[in-house]
Amino acid sequence: MADETAESADNVIYIGNKEVMNYVLAVVTQINEGSDEVVLKARGRAISRTIDTAEIVRNRFLQDLEILDIQTGTEEISGEDGTSNVSTISVKLGKGE
Amino acid sequence: MADETAESADNVIYIGNKEVMNYVLAVVTQINEGSDEVVLKARGRAISRTIDTAEIVRNRFLQDLEILDIQTGTEEISGEDGTSNVSTISVKLGKGE
Repeated sequence: MADETAESADNVIYIGNKEVMNYVLAVVTQINEGSDEVVLKARGRAISRTIDTAEIVRNRFLQDLEILDIQTGTEEISGEDGTSNVSTISVKLGKGE
Repeated sequence: MADETAESADNVIYIGNKEVMNYVLAVVTQINEGSDEVVLKARGRAISRTIDTAEIVRNRFLQDLEILDIQTGTEEISGEDGTSNVSTISVKLGKGE
């Protein structure tokens, strides 16, 4: 396969406003296609959904997957009334040693 | 002082549905009163606010505070139509070595 979708480049899955099971399926698919690691990234309110995704994948689908790392950050967003800050999260899932 | 409020027992701050600055202030107060570490705990949608709290504290108020650990989990909640699952998070903030 030449080119995966933009979302799966570098095994990154961006968590947005869809139903959580969409993202769960994306993670399970990535791993079942041979990826060792998947990174979930989100901003703002989608951060809660990111944790939901990781928990559901680990509890119901891929019990051998572990959360290897969680990083947080802050991004500036330009809006109509100046800039505001939004929190970001990056959750690395992979098979432990 | 004999007894702190329940919320500050063991330096745990529970993040709920209040404005984020309430929790930011709670963290800053805990640290300024001499605590070395503060643990933020939340469930469900408040998870995003927990990350916001940690980021705002670190970026605007206590630059020497670091995220020492992030743990996630799942809890069962009994509702009218059976049980459902909710994700949990625990974020430990403290001064790095």
